[in-house]
Amino acid sequence: MLKDLRTLFEPKSIAIIGASSKPGKPGHEVIRNILANGYEGQLHLVNPKGGTILGMNAYSSIGELPEGVDVAVIILPAQDTATAIRACVDHGIKSYVLAAGGFSEVDEKGEALQDEIVSIIESTGIRVLGPNTSGHTSTPAKFTSSFFPLGELPKGSVSYIAQTGNFATHTMRHIMTHENFGVCRVVGLGNKLDVDEADALAYLADDDETSAIVMYLESVKNPQKFMAVADGATRKKPVIMLKSGRSEKGSKAAVAHTAAMASNDKIVDGMLKQVGVTRIYRYSHLITAGKVLSHMPLPKGNRVSFLAPSGAMLVSLTDVCENDLGLEVPEIEESSRQKLQDMSPDYIRMRNPVDIWPAASVQGIERAYGRAMEIVLEDPNIDAVVPILMLLEGMEIPSMQFIVDIARKYPEKPVYVSFTGDKKPEEEAKAFLEANGVPTFPMIEDPFEALEIMARCRKAMTRSDT
Amino acid sequence: MLKDLRTLFEPKSIAIIGASSKPGKPGHEVIRNILANGYEGQLHLVNPKGGTILGMNAYSSIGELPEGVDVAVIILPAQDTATAIRACVDHGIKSYVLAAGGFSEVDEKGEALQDEIVSIIESTGIRVLGPNTSGHTSTPAKFTSSFFPLGELPKGSVSYIAQTGNFATHTMRHIMTHENFGVCRVVGLGNKLDVDEADALAYLADDDETSAIVMYLESVKNPQKFMAVADGATRKKPVIMLKSGRSEKGSKAAVAHTAAMASNDKIVDGMLKQVGVTRIYRYSHLITAGKVLSHMPLPKGNRVSFLAPSGAMLVSLTDVCENDLGLEVPEIEESSRQKLQDMSPDYIRMRNPVDIWPAASVQGIERAYGRAMEIVLEDPNIDAVVPILMLLEGMEIPSMQFIVDIARKYPEKPVYVSFTGDKKPEEEAKAFLEANGVPTFPMIEDPFEALEIMARCRKAMTRSDT
Repeated sequence: MLKDLRTLFEPKSIAIIGASSKPGKPGHEVIRNILANGYEGQLHLVNPKGGTILGMNAYSSIGELPEGVDVAVIILPAQDTATAIRACVDHGIKSYVLAAGGFSEVDEKGEALQDEIVSIIESTGIRVLGPNTSGHTSTPAKFTSSFFPLGELPKGSVSYIAQTGNFATHTMRHIMTHENFGVCRVVGLGNKLDVDEADALAYLADDDETSAIVMYLESVKNPQKFMAVADGATRKKPVIMLKSGRSEKGSKAAVAHTAAMASNDKIVDGMLKQVGVTRIYRYSHLITAGKVLSHMPLPKGNRVSFLAPSGAMLVSLTDVCENDLGLEVPEIEESSRQKLQDMSPDYIRMRNPVDIWPAASVQGIERAYGRAMEIVLEDPNIDAVVPILMLLEGMEIPSMQFIVDIARKYPEKPVYVSFTGDKKPEEEAKAFLEANGVPTFPMIEDPFEALEIMARCRKAMTRSDT
Repeated sequence: MLKDLRTLFEPKSIAIIGASSKPGKPGHEVIRNILANGYEGQLHLVNPKGGTILGMNAYSSIGELPEGVDVAVIILPAQDTATAIRACVDHGIKSYVLAAGGFSEVDEKGEALQDEIVSIIESTGIRVLGPNTSGHTSTPAKFTSSFFPLGELPKGSVSYIAQTGNFATHTMRHIMTHENFGVCRVVGLGNKLDVDEADALAYLADDDETSAIVMYLESVKNPQKFMAVADGATRKKPVIMLKSGRSEKGSKAAVAHTAAMASNDKIVDGMLKQVGVTRIYRYSHLITAGKVLSHMPLPKGNRVSFLAPSGAMLVSLTDVCENDLGLEVPEIEESSRQKLQDMSPDYIRMRNPVDIWPAASVQGIERAYGRAMEIVLEDPNIDAVVPILMLLEGMEIPSMQFIVDIARKYPEKPVYVSFTGDKKPEEEAKAFLEANGVPTFPMIEDPFEALEIMARCRKAMTRSDT
């Protein structure tokens, strides 16, 4: 039954029930999104008035739709949704996205409307996403059911499951305008009338297009089912989760948001650890995780090297790694140390972390950073490397190609980049590096926060079976 | 004796010993920096060849300098520095900035050179900053002794003391290009041959131009002296410090960087707590602290309200505040709650934190955020407010003036802003808000990290005497 979600993510024919000719209306914006993404299947529109919408003829009733519609995206008021589903079911449609809010998340009347839909689909094998969902996106199918103005979504390899509308909406716009990575599948779970986090996770775990899964949850609908699915999924792919409602007051806020049942966070924590789900604690780390998982391998361990053009940064970052993040800044092999020494002026004694500026000020940024990165990437004690680039207008700003080349030469060790200095060259470097698969971070502590998460993730994935 | 630093920060006449006509040389760049900042005192140059540098005649020896030079900025190799100081002392100059490295931070030979200078100034009342300093800056005097290309430094009210060259150099360039706040005085301590952190802190504590002090230290030269000065300073102004070398490995890195003596971090921590210094733990928080201290009052306590256009953000930020940062997200007065309810659609039950989108989607961003901000700012249970603005191109983007107006109307409660959505309107809003005294943060957790620091700072400043 879980497999049936394939139709939702790879529909050959879809119908928009509640298509609208008015810009700004959800029933209009969803069509614009689908067209912007270049959907290659059949797209049918239903509007009681018929007519033409965005150059396409609309059917005036569900009954007029052709045969073989895979997915009905129903964008109607809550009270009209059940009637529409009945007509679609009669027409043989098996998968649904219910956009409207006003169901169980609001009041008892909404709960009754939701129960009515449950009774319609019971024992039919029909799959329903929502209600109260911001839709789902499937870039491999060039398709989205989101009615939030998004335009063409960039294709990537990381998929998202979110028990909130904002991931697929304004957070997606944040990603699209601030970052340079794409998405694979994105599911807004909404009220989880039928499709829940376990169903979505099971599908994505087996999805060849999905390399990693990032989740936001406020509640787990069926913990036993979820644990069974997650235990399998996390042995195949990274699964990162922000489970919010950790604090008593956050838990109350979750009840207000999605009517999530309050749960003891220690129990949740134990459960997620047991099944290898890597927990994160900040909303912004949903973006961080997506970014690094899109491009870089997981580190094999927690042993980092970094290069900085400043003693103060070396010292304070070592503190952050060792004291706050549980990352190790290990000694490197004496042979590696000697190589660093050989490339640097005599007055500085080289070690890990790497005080790169004495060498860079003599040899230039590209040669010094490049050579030192290779030395530490080749060292068996190091799992990941973070060069912190000092870029200043009016001084040497090398092409960032050398960083890309080195990252590709060592495909088993992540390279994350950060910066100090001027904004303009930093933004240019970010655009180039991220377009070429090297994630960057504006503040120097950020790459280490990301590495901490990814080191835990690797450990969770390679846990023993006991 | 401590008061003598006034000459360093408010010099009426300065001499650059080692002035150079070659762009890129420290002895050239320092002159360009001084000219760029519009220094209004007398500027004299000394170069053995005499001639003209940047349109000014250079003296060919120190002996030719006119009387009444306040500060000599000596930019000569380490081995020539002592001879130059002797000549300057003979000429009656009382304050020095020694830019050269190659002293005690390097080797025994350098240590001997440094000792020679110590013996020259002993019992003379002469004050020396450095050696191995990136210089000092004093925007109220339109002056800098930094030789790192900076141009005109933006004037602000927060002063900085840094035991590292990078704060006054590439970190300053970061601030100048990424941020919209200025600096008051900036001291690079260098090797602390004479002027140390306690001297600088004592001067800045009594400096009318300085509203707050941010420090980076790797060691404390004279703990007793420092504690006495800090205990007084922190009762007058916020004093924030990153003391690095917390971890064993960080401590080793500090020895390599500034030859800082390793010290037990628990002792350091207790000492700083006792004298009311607010400790921070991340290099990037040096910038964060400067930013919020430049514009906003300290919060009177740790009780925050925030407005977000997303239930998931409300829940996860509540968790971060309550579980990770020690900030409280309290209930507000029932009368405040009712006012929020009255402005919002019925289906949502309003509380703190404020789920603002239902109201904003009906009334627009300016009206809904503006009204809700005033309601929570007027509530006696709230010490600080963070509106998280959703800005999307193609949708309503109001002028940010209403945020500025509200922040000014409640001058005792800090307002920090964050964003979700598109990059372009966010950058425009940041530029406008920060130019008008409202700090902004790109990621939604950042303002709360800043509030946590500032709440601790307020508590430290108002500590009892016992």
